[in-house]
Amino acid sequence: MEVKVAVDAMGGDYAPAETVRGAVDAAVEFPQISIILVGKEEEIKRELISVKKEMENSSKPFPDDRISVVHATEVIDMGEVPTLAIKEKKDSSLVVAMKLVRDGQADAIVSAGSTGAILVGGQLVVGRIKGVKRPALAPFLPTKKGMSLLIDCGANVDAKPENLVQFAQMGSIYYENVMGVKNPTVGIVNIGTEEEKGNKLVKETGPLLKECKGVNFIGSVEARDIPLNPSNVLVCEAFVGNVILKLFEGLAKTFLGMIKSALYKSAKTKIGGLLIKKSLKEQLKSFDTSSQGGAPLLGLKGLVVKAHGNSKAYEIRTAIYQCITFKENDISNKIKEAVNTNE
Amino acid sequence: MEVKVAVDAMGGDYAPAETVRGAVDAAVEFPQISIILVGKEEEIKRELISVKKEMENSSKPFPDDRISVVHATEVIDMGEVPTLAIKEKKDSSLVVAMKLVRDGQADAIVSAGSTGAILVGGQLVVGRIKGVKRPALAPFLPTKKGMSLLIDCGANVDAKPENLVQFAQMGSIYYENVMGVKNPTVGIVNIGTEEEKGNKLVKETGPLLKECKGVNFIGSVEARDIPLNPSNVLVCEAFVGNVILKLFEGLAKTFLGMIKSALYKSAKTKIGGLLIKKSLKEQLKSFDTSSQGGAPLLGLKGLVVKAHGNSKAYEIRTAIYQCITFKENDISNKIKEAVNTNE
Repeated sequence: MEVKVAVDAMGGDYAPAETVRGAVDAAVEFPQISIILVGKEEEIKRELISVKKEMENSSKPFPDDRISVVHATEVIDMGEVPTLAIKEKKDSSLVVAMKLVRDGQADAIVSAGSTGAILVGGQLVVGRIKGVKRPALAPFLPTKKGMSLLIDCGANVDAKPENLVQFAQMGSIYYENVMGVKNPTVGIVNIGTEEEKGNKLVKETGPLLKECKGVNFIGSVEARDIPLNPSNVLVCEAFVGNVILKLFEGLAKTFLGMIKSALYKSAKTKIGGLLIKKSLKEQLKSFDTSSQGGAPLLGLKGLVVKAHGNSKAYEIRTAIYQCITFKENDISNKIKEAVNTNE
Repeated sequence: MEVKVAVDAMGGDYAPAETVRGAVDAAVEFPQISIILVGKEEEIKRELISVKKEMENSSKPFPDDRISVVHATEVIDMGEVPTLAIKEKKDSSLVVAMKLVRDGQADAIVSAGSTGAILVGGQLVVGRIKGVKRPALAPFLPTKKGMSLLIDCGANVDAKPENLVQFAQMGSIYYENVMGVKNPTVGIVNIGTEEEKGNKLVKETGPLLKECKGVNFIGSVEARDIPLNPSNVLVCEAFVGNVILKLFEGLAKTFLGMIKSALYKSAKTKIGGLLIKKSLKEQLKSFDTSSQGGAPLLGLKGLVVKAHGNSKAYEIRTAIYQCITFKENDISNKIKEAVNTNE
């Protein structure tokens, strides 16, 4: 099955060099992938030539027939107000790439650009699946044992209980199809596990999740247990999800940085570091985020994948790879069905 | 200045052994402290005799004249519904200890018992300062460089902007007096630093904080920066505060556990561990929570300090020590003044 992925070549801290490189890597590695690189043609072509040159001595051929370029004159910067950027920069790489998905010329779009613009563009350009009230950004969170899907981490805050129920449905379908776990468990992030605890939103959502077909609801999950993977899917409102995701990233980075400093402190600690390096890496590898690719924006008519802003070629490649599973498992249609059956 | 502290001897995972021990330690070390141990008299006295015996060969005398016991027949368990427990267990160690504060027989109460019961008891038994709309639980969060005060982490969720403004006022006063930092910076936890970002609560609170006298507001703070101490005081609604606090604790515990496992894996890694131990400890010591004592419940007529449920003698002692600063700096009156001036 051919999977056509539009790549926002200009989005991200290392664009276009790393986005182009990652896209080529994906096409080289996965024969079912076709890439449409969207952005400033001249810059993209320059990068393509350079990658091609590097690959001259490679055993794998450069996939010329599966890589095309669509020119877009504008770029949306990280600091721009998302709604304005999407409305005004009609010829930006992001909007043009999203239009390819809307018009059926691509199955998916991958972007490492502004999260806000991707969320707004997803809704305004690609469009919601009929019945989905609010799309949700759903990154995988690495834990001590496996991955949890955290849904929603987007920018649409102040959600209603019915939104959270749909997040649980969409998250369950995505987790089951991508991770191959039948009937994945769903927990709601709360400040205690007792039923009387929580804010208004959580208290109202709990009973609805209990009744919801296709959702294997296990109740409340406390934030302290998140690093231990208390449920496959973690449902929460976007503000809370964003705080969890960012604090998780920030703390992990700080801790790893401090360990590194401790190991590089003196000749003695450097020797110690050599002795424990392998063991430490093995222990901490479950927290490695580079293997996860991007976060899908679930609930849209086509697949929109948000890659981390600091993605390099490897992360872009992984984000593109994700699109295969999404299409092969027909996840959009499964979401459409689930959401409209439960109405 | 004498500081009388009522200690809930029966609250916490290691009560009464560690609570009694911690209370005696505090009285031994700080001559201005008087302790009233509240709980089952027989059990408390047994512990006191045992501590006294251990101290026989110590150079410091047992502070008999500054330690008294008040009998209470009941104990509030961790699993109980807070409002019911406070209303029905009138002779519990927690309620009796809080009444001592209400009646002016003690300046402060320290408890390592149920957080929910402490929050409810604080409001119902000790009572709010006139003008304070909602008291707030304010633990210190250890960061790479110094402590941040996270306010509110209590159980009163769904706060209003006016509540958050008072949290900022109370937090600033507490931080300034306890940490000795003039005009401490205040940030609001948000999902982005741009003004248009955030949920309804944060967007409405921002402008009020800008206008608020005595609050050195620096704007929004992202969760990813929390480990780097972006502001002295971090203001947020209790649900979000609780998630931050618990995730922080959970992740720190998981990471430290994984590092330990890596170091104990083989003979080789154990040697490596010995070489880096000191350097690693030094790096990570800023994240050590045992030196912080407890979290005050700010906005009440007397001081209520919530110690961590797993507190041992050292943490109880530190939580009691905190009460000295609180009284000496007249923090309750300063809060009363600030809150009523800004009305």
